[in-house]
Amino acid sequence: MTETNTPVPGPEGARVGVWFVGARGSVGATAIAGALAVRAGLAGETGMVSRLPEVAVAGLPELAGLQFGGHDVSDVSLPKRVEALVDAGVVPHGLPAALATELARVDARIRPGVTGSERPQREIAAALTADLRAFREDNGLDRVVVVDVSSTEPPVRVTPELLTLDGLEQALDAGESPLPASSLYAYAALRADCSVVAFTPSPGPRLPALAELAETVGLPWAGSDGKTGETLLKTVLAPMFAMRALKVRSWSSMNLLGGGDGRTLADPANAVSKTATKGQGLEAILGHRVDGPLHIDYVPDLGDWKTAWDMVSFEGFLGARMSLQFTWTGCDSALAAPLVLDLARLVARAHQAGRVGPQAALGFFFKDPAGSDVHALSEQWEALRTWCAELAEAEERR
Amino acid sequence: MTETNTPVPGPEGARVGVWFVGARGSVGATAIAGALAVRAGLAGETGMVSRLPEVAVAGLPELAGLQFGGHDVSDVSLPKRVEALVDAGVVPHGLPAALATELARVDARIRPGVTGSERPQREIAAALTADLRAFREDNGLDRVVVVDVSSTEPPVRVTPELLTLDGLEQALDAGESPLPASSLYAYAALRADCSVVAFTPSPGPRLPALAELAETVGLPWAGSDGKTGETLLKTVLAPMFAMRALKVRSWSSMNLLGGGDGRTLADPANAVSKTATKGQGLEAILGHRVDGPLHIDYVPDLGDWKTAWDMVSFEGFLGARMSLQFTWTGCDSALAAPLVLDLARLVARAHQAGRVGPQAALGFFFKDPAGSDVHALSEQWEALRTWCAELAEAEERR
Amino acid sequence: MTETNTPVPGPEGARVGVWFVGARGSVGATAIAGALAVRAGLAGETGMVSRLPEVAVAGLPELAGLQFGGHDVSDVSLPKRVEALVDAGVVPHGLPAALATELARVDARIRPGVTGSERPQREIAAALTADLRAFREDNGLDRVVVVDVSSTEPPVRVTPELLTLDGLEQALDAGESPLPASSLYAYAALRADCSVVAFTPSPGPRLPALAELAETVGLPWAGSDGKTGETLLKTVLAPMFAMRALKVRSWSSMNLLGGGDGRTLADPANAVSKTATKGQGLEAILGHRVDGPLHIDYVPDLGDWKTAWDMVSFEGFLGARMSLQFTWTGCDSALAAPLVLDLARLVARAHQAGRVGPQAALGFFFKDPAGSDVHALSEQWEALRTWCAELAEAEERR
Amino acid sequence: MTETNTPVPGPEGARVGVWFVGARGSVGATAIAGALAVRAGLAGETGMVSRLPEVAVAGLPELAGLQFGGHDVSDVSLPKRVEALVDAGVVPHGLPAALATELARVDARIRPGVTGSERPQREIAAALTADLRAFREDNGLDRVVVVDVSSTEPPVRVTPELLTLDGLEQALDAGESPLPASSLYAYAALRADCSVVAFTPSPGPRLPALAELAETVGLPWAGSDGKTGETLLKTVLAPMFAMRALKVRSWSSMNLLGGGDGRTLADPANAVSKTATKGQGLEAILGHRVDGPLHIDYVPDLGDWKTAWDMVSFEGFLGARMSLQFTWTGCDSALAAPLVLDLARLVARAHQAGRVGPQAALGFFFKDPAGSDVHALSEQWEALRTWCAELAEAEERR
Ligand SMILES: NC(=O)c1ccc[n+]([C@@H]2O[C@H](COP(=O)([O-])OP(=O)(O)OC[C@H]3O[C@@H](n4cnc5c(N)ncnc54)[C@H](O)[C@@H]3O)[C@@H](O)[C@H]2O)c1
Ligand SMILES: NC(=O)c1ccc[n+]([C@@H]2O[C@H](COP(=O)([O-])OP(=O)(O)OC[C@H]3O[C@@H](n4cnc5c(N)ncnc54)[C@H](O)[C@@H]3O)[C@@H](O)[C@H]2O)c1
Ligand SMILES: NC(=O)c1ccc[n+]([C@@H]2O[C@H](COP(=O)([O-])OP(=O)(O)OC[C@H]3O[C@@H](n4cnc5c(N)ncnc54)[C@H](O)[C@@H]3O)[C@@H](O)[C@H]2O)c1
Ligand SMILES: NC(=O)c1ccc[n+]([C@@H]2O[C@H](COP(=O)([O-])OP(=O)(O)OC[C@H]3O[C@@H](n4cnc5c(N)ncnc54)[C@H](O)[C@@H]3O)[C@@H](O)[C@H]2O)c1
Ligand code: NA
Ligand code: NA
Repeated sequence: MTETNTPVPGPEGARVGVWFVGARGSVGATAIAGALAVRAGLAGETGMVSRLPEVAVAGLPELAGLQFGGHDVSDVSLPKRVEALVDAGVVPHGLPAALATELARVDARIRPGVTGSERPQREIAAALTADLRAFREDNGLDRVVVVDVSSTEPPVRVTPELLTLDGLEQALDAGESPLPASSLYAYAALRADCSVVAFTPSPGPRLPALAELAETVGLPWAGSDGKTGETLLKTVLAPMFAMRALKVRSWSSMNLLGGGDGRTLADPANAVSKTATKGQGLEAILGHRVDGPLHIDYVPDLGDWKTAWDMVSFEGFLGARMSLQFTWTGCDSALAAPLVLDLARLVARAHQAGRVGPQAALGFFFKDPAGSDVHALSEQWEALRTWCAELAEAEERR
Repeated sequence: MTETNTPVPGPEGARVGVWFVGARGSVGATAIAGALAVRAGLAGETGMVSRLPEVAVAGLPELAGLQFGGHDVSDVSLPKRVEALVDAGVVPHGLPAALATELARVDARIRPGVTGSERPQREIAAALTADLRAFREDNGLDRVVVVDVSSTEPPVRVTPELLTLDGLEQALDAGESPLPASSLYAYAALRADCSVVAFTPSPGPRLPALAELAETVGLPWAGSDGKTGETLLKTVLAPMFAMRALKVRSWSSMNLLGGGDGRTLADPANAVSKTATKGQGLEAILGHRVDGPLHIDYVPDLGDWKTAWDMVSFEGFLGARMSLQFTWTGCDSALAAPLVLDLARLVARAHQAGRVGPQAALGFFFKDPAGSDVHALSEQWEALRTWCAELAEAEERR
Repeated sequence: MTETNTPVPGPEGARVGVWFVGARGSVGATAIAGALAVRAGLAGETGMVSRLPEVAVAGLPELAGLQFGGHDVSDVSLPKRVEALVDAGVVPHGLPAALATELARVDARIRPGVTGSERPQREIAAALTADLRAFREDNGLDRVVVVDVSSTEPPVRVTPELLTLDGLEQALDAGESPLPASSLYAYAALRADCSVVAFTPSPGPRLPALAELAETVGLPWAGSDGKTGETLLKTVLAPMFAMRALKVRSWSSMNLLGGGDGRTLADPANAVSKTATKGQGLEAILGHRVDGPLHIDYVPDLGDWKTAWDMVSFEGFLGARMSLQFTWTGCDSALAAPLVLDLARLVARAHQAGRVGPQAALGFFFKDPAGSDVHALSEQWEALRTWCAELAEAEERR
Repeated sequence: MTETNTPVPGPEGARVGVWFVGARGSVGATAIAGALAVRAGLAGETGMVSRLPEVAVAGLPELAGLQFGGHDVSDVSLPKRVEALVDAGVVPHGLPAALATELARVDARIRPGVTGSERPQREIAAALTADLRAFREDNGLDRVVVVDVSSTEPPVRVTPELLTLDGLEQALDAGESPLPASSLYAYAALRADCSVVAFTPSPGPRLPALAELAETVGLPWAGSDGKTGETLLKTVLAPMFAMRALKVRSWSSMNLLGGGDGRTLADPANAVSKTATKGQGLEAILGHRVDGPLHIDYVPDLGDWKTAWDMVSFEGFLGARMSLQFTWTGCDSALAAPLVLDLARLVARAHQAGRVGPQAALGFFFKDPAGSDVHALSEQWEALRTWCAELAEAEERR
């Protein structure tokens, strides 16, 4: 095994493609520019979990070998978006110039995105599938992972045709368009033999009909909603209170953020998806409902930098009332981008290893871990470690 | 197994004594009053780790059966001290009156403490040992745990006679007095066949000669320096940064506290012991030295309530600079007292089970875990859980 | 003139009555119990602006001479309410017992409150007026101040009959009930020749018809919405940014509180009144609209203790982005009660001195200063100081 | 009078020179680059008090007309220093290139600084004076202000020869070198007919002999120690507590900073000067000593960005214990630079108007206001406003 900083190359030297839905957004653009920068020796791997030996051991496809493409509904080109991220303080000065050719090459591979209501979804799905197949073939790729980093959608009402694969296919055959965009992308991905990562809280592959499709076609997927900030902290702090038999009385949270994600979440309909995924961890860890508001506020002035303030009121021996407050000042895209790259490589590896369905062991990365109800970060880390060790062994036994 | 809230009674119904060095201090008095209050149904078990099923399973001696005694150099009686803790907001109003008889009974068992320079330490040790034996015999106890909750001492220079048991005994025979008070208490305890808990950062049982004595006489001990506040947080937050491959650039800490402990630590000589134990965890967890000041300040106005502020500056992908700040407002004695009771019961159980030497699995409770270099709280929790499960099995196999 | 701690006695030794609308609420009960405690030598004057020489100089009626009564819709007796405030940590242990007789005596003077829809408001007003007259006569009082510390009402739509006194009287004559409760109380007060303090954000005396009535009957009043916490801080911090030519980019605020006030404000209809008064100061001081959310959340667990967190994002020279965060942990009733007593005495003094209408110089106490658009605390202090000095001179010239 | 953003030009179109002692430090370089940027239309006047109408009215020399020069002991050229400030995030990208010619021109005017022990101080003073005269003559300046922004010195023991001008001159004549460097610079400045601004806490013009010299030669000066961050906040928050009759029980402060200033203050000898000036305001405002630590810590990782955390514990009515915490994250040089430019212009104006000695009305800018014991910011603002208005009138009367 090579050293900490260099991930173990994929055993078979597989060529892996990463297809971002929302490739021109903050997270997508930071991930692409970041991967290119690391490859060019212009940036390090800080923030990439895959550089830790416990994870690298799994035998992941090399970062340097990843090929990028994507869908987006935005007309702002990738190079322009990266420039904007420089102004926002996310991407270092100088990078856009140094990576100009490469960024332009990726931008050329970005295809128009869909909202899902342009025409009957059967037709849209076919077009999306064709995009994915073309990407794989044109670039001689062995495998493609579709990673959703597009804007958060509102939650969806799970109507009967979203409950079973059969029902869904019949509806599509009938010219209906029952899927939210995120799930339409997931459908197309699975039909194009691509594995899926749902980094947003949108329904995506989590609808029962979609989950069934993944089983049917034998593909792995992971989700959902990347755990990068306040929720990350909650899932290390709440276990501390639990292990110390302290009683959490209330937990109040305020999240201030600007950027595109902030703008999207300023719409209460979209925010519901996020507050739902953010809220569930505490209760799961502490074993009881916890009082306290959870706000997400759009403060344009803050740009891509998020400030979260939490106040935990708790009780100790003899009724003593105590409190913990924290303020997290984080650059959301810089936190998300390396995890997105980690996930792409981990799910590609799972695909290679023949894993199918929601990868519970990747719950470490998510606010709402598909296939798992474990939220405590250290337990998730153990699960991830074990999973990576198993893949390492599997490799060796070959 | 009984329910969460009632610890499993000691299998043999053993009568266990808990002897506090520093019984009239904030922690000692809160632990005694708290145990009496729980026994009388006037308080719950919040903050007691032993109430968690994973720990209770070990088969601990019942809280209600513990007998208390101790040494202290203070003349302020235990009931008076508890009254003061009411004024300080640590102990609820009404408790001193409700527990008056019981508190007076315990107070009558508190014997004059020593500084270690009153007379040759051989003689002092004999007197302390006699106190402990009398406590055990007068109260028909099966086992006694000596728990040091006295004022923090300065670090000690480890001279040759503190390195081996032989060397120590020769020095004592020669009329010398080489031991700091905390180690003199530990010596007397071990010689009186008592197990030991070092809740303070003082040298106590950690000097090589003392550790050797524990092995020789076949007794278990645990230490040192209870992990109750800022350091507790550090040992859940630092692993989070490590697991996410984020680079901690600096970690600055400020602790404001009043009370007796604050007054003691206002003396820089004593504070050195504390800052040493507080500092080591971060480096152990992160694998590199971390910049940043660590202050402990005596602010009399705050009484037994401590406020700690920490600021962590860290770096993510593409060099993004981010920060986490937290403010912890805790009642130190209310946090420490239940752990002290837990430890007394756990070490008594270890004694009963024939365990010898530093109990690494109790590192969960300490800033400077004797016998272990694991600092991450979740790893410590796993070790504790395993240890308790083993004791449970051992019991069943009998 | 006597010393700082003893307010200058009213020049004529006037007997002043204070009538609380909401006498059994947290603020009302704390003010009454507090005044009785100070009088009995059981508490000091911390938090009372009237103890400062600059204010005391105005020649205020003595605190010890105030007589209390009030209206409330609650059946919980004043002594019971004060007991609850002891449990909440607002009122010191022992006080209810020490003041039992006096509290009972005040409680006996509390009359049933009204919501305003019991019967035609003409009749209700007559009953309230009778209550006030009886209070003045039964207790041989020279003057009565009616202080509204009842639950916050929703804002009211200002219909034509609320615009002029004539219009209002005609509506009342016609058997209509156009007034919100707070304004009905203010109407009755002014008709009973009582001055008025609006400590809540409810409409009270601020409706045009009511303000006209105060002019007509020649009575002073002050309001509205006591400035005790986060807004207080805003009105000293915002001027700092302005004086230093720093550009405030956004100001985000979160208020967590329990208690009765918290419960009332958990209803969005009521909260509108509060967020309106809280929001206006910043813009007035900075001269431009400021972005950022303002939340008030009901967190029952916090009881009468409020925690507010604010984050100010600002810009300096060469575009440098900086921030200020603060956390205020305050006991709302302990902050409000002494101001309520100050206001009662100041408005009684204004009444004695023949002042009429909104007392702009009392804007120092309020989030939404009636008769003034000055919000910066130091400017308000200067205005208050000048006003008090004038009253002192007026007295001397007599 | 022109608009807010354009300061009133000096009535006589005077050509004013600003001579920085420490011209290549963070503050010096930011001030120079900033002034050049504003002049070139590349930056705005945010953070400049002189842009406020109340100050601009005084008739200040135009920013665009200022000529810069200075002394420094550092060999790092001004353009290089400005580059470093870009990397530190203080100065915007692109500025060094845009201002390259101008920066080089100023750098050419920077003369080697002195420590004061190179040779007898009589000789050094003569050389420094010659430098200043040459600067004035070579550039055809009407007036020169010497602004000390060099590294903080340790406090000095005031020996007899520092007490009177006569004593000082005799000592210099005798070949002695009694002056700390900052005072030697001030001596030379005054002897060269330059006014002086002491932006550091170093002794500078504050030694009695120097203050006497200023009177003798009839020159104005201002100092000392710029009030830019935590202390600024203290001087708006402490008056709030005072005006509300709340009792401040303790005030604890922690300042974390990197940069050159941080490195200098990491030496406890130098830090004494700073903690002395930082400490005095609170007591002056509150009228009593206030408990609580005050730390300044060097955390290299933070660079030019300072984080200060303060916790104020205070008491209200009925003994309620409350607290206020704040965290200030500021860019020290961006805060200081515009004030330094303001001060240069204000003191030049005072010089022109014939003012002599310490300018108490400029206390607004300082932690340790020379000639004044007023610390409350709003009172200082009133004094500044009045002073500026007087100068405006003086002008008009001419
Ligand atoms: N940054 C984090 O820390 C983090 C953490 C968890 C989840 N997320 C999620 O990641 C997602 C992306 O965040 P962001 O900050 O990059 O947001 P963003 O607004 O900057 O980017 C979203 C991108 O999606 C594109 N898009 C919108 N609808 C689309 C569609 N139907 N098809 C294709 N593209 C579409 C937009 O044009 C935009 O380019 C969000 O859903 C966010 O909630 C981010
Ligand atoms: N409270 C916590 O959260 C916590 C956490 C870790 C460690 N500790 C440690 O626990 C210890 C006790 O803390 P506390 O707050 O109760 O302090 P305290 O000052 O209130 O009590 C200390 C007691 O020890 C007694 N004492 C001093 N010297 C003695 C001696 N030579 N022999 C016998 N008694 C002696 C004192 O008289 C006093 O009664 C301290 O060492 C502290 O550092 C406390
Ligand atoms: N505490 C502060 O710092 C502060 C600051 C500014 C304003 N205020 C305002 O003061 C008021 C009182 O606050 P509180 O904390 O005491 O609230 P509370 O809920 O404890 O008390 C309100 C009282 O008003 C009574 N009440 C309700 N409707 C009434 C009616 N129609 N007639 C007579 N009585 C009625 C209630 O029965 C209750 O006793 C609120 O409006 C609050 O917004 C408080
Ligand atoms: N930045 C602020 O907010 C602020 C506020 C108040 C006071 N100050 C004071 O301003 C001063 C400058 O701060 P900075 O951050 O620019 O520090 P810095 O270390 O970056 O700059 C100091 C400069 O002074 C030069 N210097 C040192 N000794 C000298 C000497 N004898 N003669 C001439 N030059 C000499 C150094 O070479 C350096 O270039 C410090 O004393 C600081 O305490 C700064
Ligand atoms: Na250890
Ligand atoms: Na107003």
